[in-house]
Amino acid sequence: MRASVYRKAHFNAAHRLFNPQWDSEKNNAVFGLCNNENWHGHNYDLVVKVTGEIDPITGFVIDMKYLKELIKSEVEDRFDHKNLNLDCPEFRNLNPTAENIALVIFDLLRAKLPSSLELQVRLYETERNFVDYPV
Amino acid sequence: MRASVYRKAHFNAAHRLFNPQWDSEKNNAVFGLCNNENWHGHNYDLVVKVTGEIDPITGFVIDMKYLKELIKSEVEDRFDHKNLNLDCPEFRNLNPTAENIALVIFDLLRAKLPSSLELQVRLYETERNFVDYPV
Amino acid sequence: MRASVYRKAHFNAAHRLFNPQWDSEKNNAVFGLCNNENWHGHNYDLVVKVTGEIDPITGFVIDMKYLKELIKSEVEDRFDHKNLNLDCPEFRNLNPTAENIALVIFDLLRAKLPSSLELQVRLYETERNFVDYPV
Amino acid sequence: MRASVYRKAHFNAAHRLFNPQWDSEKNNAVFGLCNNENWHGHNYDLVVKVTGEIDPITGFVIDMKYLKELIKSEVEDRFDHKNLNLDCPEFRNLNPTAENIALVIFDLLRAKLPSSLELQVRLYETERNFVDYPV
Amino acid sequence: MRASVYRKAHFNAAHRLFNPQWDSEKNNAVFGLCNNENWHGHNYDLVVKVTGEIDPITGFVIDMKYLKELIKSEVEDRFDHKNLNLDCPEFRNLNPTAENIALVIFDLLRAKLPSSLELQVRLYETERNFVDYPV
Amino acid sequence: MRASVYRKAHFNAAHRLFNPQWDSEKNNAVFGLCNNENWHGHNYDLVVKVTGEIDPITGFVIDMKYLKELIKSEVEDRFDHKNLNLDCPEFRNLNPTAENIALVIFDLLRAKLPSSLELQVRLYETERNFVDYPV
Repeated sequence: MRASVYRKAHFNAAHRLFNPQWDSEKNNAVFGLCNNENWHGHNYDLVVKVTGEIDPITGFVIDMKYLKELIKSEVEDRFDHKNLNLDCPEFRNLNPTAENIALVIFDLLRAKLPSSLELQVRLYETERNFVDYPV
Repeated sequence: MRASVYRKAHFNAAHRLFNPQWDSEKNNAVFGLCNNENWHGHNYDLVVKVTGEIDPITGFVIDMKYLKELIKSEVEDRFDHKNLNLDCPEFRNLNPTAENIALVIFDLLRAKLPSSLELQVRLYETERNFVDYPV
Repeated sequence: MRASVYRKAHFNAAHRLFNPQWDSEKNNAVFGLCNNENWHGHNYDLVVKVTGEIDPITGFVIDMKYLKELIKSEVEDRFDHKNLNLDCPEFRNLNPTAENIALVIFDLLRAKLPSSLELQVRLYETERNFVDYPV
Repeated sequence: MRASVYRKAHFNAAHRLFNPQWDSEKNNAVFGLCNNENWHGHNYDLVVKVTGEIDPITGFVIDMKYLKELIKSEVEDRFDHKNLNLDCPEFRNLNPTAENIALVIFDLLRAKLPSSLELQVRLYETERNFVDYPV
Repeated sequence: MRASVYRKAHFNAAHRLFNPQWDSEKNNAVFGLCNNENWHGHNYDLVVKVTGEIDPITGFVIDMKYLKELIKSEVEDRFDHKNLNLDCPEFRNLNPTAENIALVIFDLLRAKLPSSLELQVRLYETERNFVDYPV
Repeated sequence: MRASVYRKAHFNAAHRLFNPQWDSEKNNAVFGLCNNENWHGHNYDLVVKVTGEIDPITGFVIDMKYLKELIKSEVEDRFDHKNLNLDCPEFRNLNPTAENIALVIFDLLRAKLPSSLELQVRLYETERNFVDYPV
C-alpha cells in the first residue's frame, strides 16, 4: 500500500548563472541573458514528492502539516527573497541552475526525513522550464 | 509502442479526518483543522493514467470517450456532492485521506479495466496537496 | 495615478444550499445536488481587489503584507476548514451560495479598509463557477 | 547526479481521426465527433523531458536555449497552424491521435539528441486529455 | 445587491482567417499563418459573465445549472468539433476571428436571457490571446 | 461593435523595493523582505488589454501579431533578465513596485498605439499579487 504524496511551495529569488573560471565572453556564450552581472530573478515553484507506505492508523504517508512546515523552515525561509549567489552559502561554489537548486533542496530535505521515505523534488524556474531530481 | 494516456475529472465533496478509536484530543493533535466534526470540503481533481500498447488500427491506448464515461459512472456519480464519511460506504471504516481516496478510486477503476492495461490515479485534494496511487 | 491591486487567498469549506422555508422536493428542484443534507464542499479561491491612488512615497496602493494579513484574519481564519452553515453565524440565516459568500466577505473586509480605497471581491467556488461582488 | 529537465512548448493545429479502411459508419462509431470530415482543432501543449547527468562545469543536463530552439525547428515550425492530416507527411498514413502525434514528435527529437540523453514527450490535446510516450 | 456570476465552458474547433475579397498575397500579409487554406484549430475556452440582482430567496443571480445547460445547447453543441468556416452558418460571411466568435456567442446567449440580466462573453483562442465582448 | 483584446507576455527580472530617502530601519519596516539589499526576483506575467472597434474588414480590434511584436520590443526586450533598479533607467528614481512597473509599461505602450485604442495593463508579480493600471 505505497503511495506518493506531493506538496507545493514557492519562493522568489534573484540569481545569476556563470562559471567564475571562464571569461565574460565564454559566460555570455553559454549562459546568455542568464549571465547578466546585475542579476535577474524568478518565482520558483517547488513540488516535493514523498513516497512510502500508507499508515493504516492515520491514512497518511506523511503528515502534510509536518511536510509543509519542513519545507517552510528548510527551503522557503532559506531562499525566499534572497539572492541565491550572494546570500546563500549553498551556492557560493555552485552555479544556481535549476538542476543545482533542485539538488540542494533535495539534500536539505533528505537530511530531515526518515530513510523509510523516498524523496524527489521538482523545481519550476518558470512555467516552461522545470527540473526533477533525482530521476 | 507503449504509451500512457491521462484523463482529468473532478468532484466536490465534504469529509472529516478522524480515527474513531482515538479521543477528541488525539484526533485534533493528529488531524488538526481536518478533524472539524462539522466537516469541511474540497474540489477534488482526479487524473487517471492508463498505460498500454498503442493499437495500430485506432491509434488509441484506450478510447478516451469510454474512459471518460467510466470515470463518470464509477467515480464522479459516486462521490460528487457527497459527504465521503456519511454518504459513501467505501469510507465507513476507512479514513478519507487523499491517500485512501486515491486507493479506493484505483480499486473501483481497476475492476473495470482489462488486465492488459496498467492503471495509476492521481488525486488533488487542493492545488498544493496531491497523491499518486500506486507508486 | 489610480491603480487596482489584487491579492489571492483560499479556504476549504463544507456547505449545503437550501431554503428552510421550502420542503425537500422544492429544495431539490432548485438546488439539485447542492442540497445534499449531509453537505458537500469546495476549495474556495478568493481574489480581493483594492483600488486607489498609488502613494508616491511607497509606490503602493496598499501594503500587500497588510492586505494578506487582513484576509487571513478576517476570512481564512473564519471560514477555512469550516462548515459554513453550521459553524459560521454569518450564514445562519443566509444561504451560502457563492454570491452570498462573496457579499459576506466584502462586508467583513469593507469594515476594515479606509473609505478612500474601493473594494471588490471575486470568489471561485470551482474553477468553472465564480462571482464578483459588487459589480 | 542525474536529473530530468522539462521544456514546455505549444502549437495549434487542425486534424481529423479516421481509418481510411473503414466506412463512415464505423469511423463515426469509433471516433465520434473527432471524425468530422471538415476537421476540428486543438491548442496542443507539449512538454519535452530530457534525462541525463548534470554537467559539473555548467550545472546543466542540457542547454535549455538549445532545447527550446530544437523544439521550435523540429516541432513548432512543422506543425503550428497546420492541418496534420493534409499538410504533414508524417500523418499521411498515420491517424493523428494524441498517442501517434506524441510518437512522431519523439522520433523527430530523438534523432537530434545525443544517445547519452533519455527522452520522453508529453502531449496535451486538451487540458483534460494527455499522453506520455514512451512509458 | 448586484453581482456578476461567471461560468466557464470550452469547445474545440478548426477555422481559417481570410477575406474572400482579397487575393492570396493580401490574405497572407494580413492573416499570416492563420490563413492556411487547409485550416488549423484551437481549444476555445469561453467564460460567460451574467450580471444582475442577487435573488433574496435563492441567493442566486441566475441558476448556474441553467446557465451551464444554456451554454451547452447554444454554444458547445453548435461549435464543438466543428469547422467554423464550413460547418457553421454564423461564419459563412463573417471572418471567424476571436472578436467575431465572441460577438456571435454573445448574440446567441443574449437572445435567451431575460433583459434584466447583463451579459458579457470572454473567449480565449489560446492561453495568450483572448477577447471580451461587449466592452 | 467595440471589444477588448488581450495579449499575455512575460519577463523575468530582479528588483529591490526601497526609498533612498529613508534609513535601513524604515525601509525594512515598510518593505520587509522586498528590501533585501542583494535583490530578489520574479517571473512577471503581463496581460495587455486593448479596446476599440472591431474592424469590419479584418474582424480585428488590432492585429495580434503586431501587438505581440510591440510588447516584445517595448517591454520584454527592455526588462527581461534585467535588474530593474540597476539596468533600467525607468526605475532610477522610481521604486519598482508592481504598481509602478505597470505604470511604466502603460506609458511605453501608450506612446506607440493610436489614440483610437484604449489601453490597460495587468501585471502579475506572483500568481497571488497583481495590479491593473489604469483603473
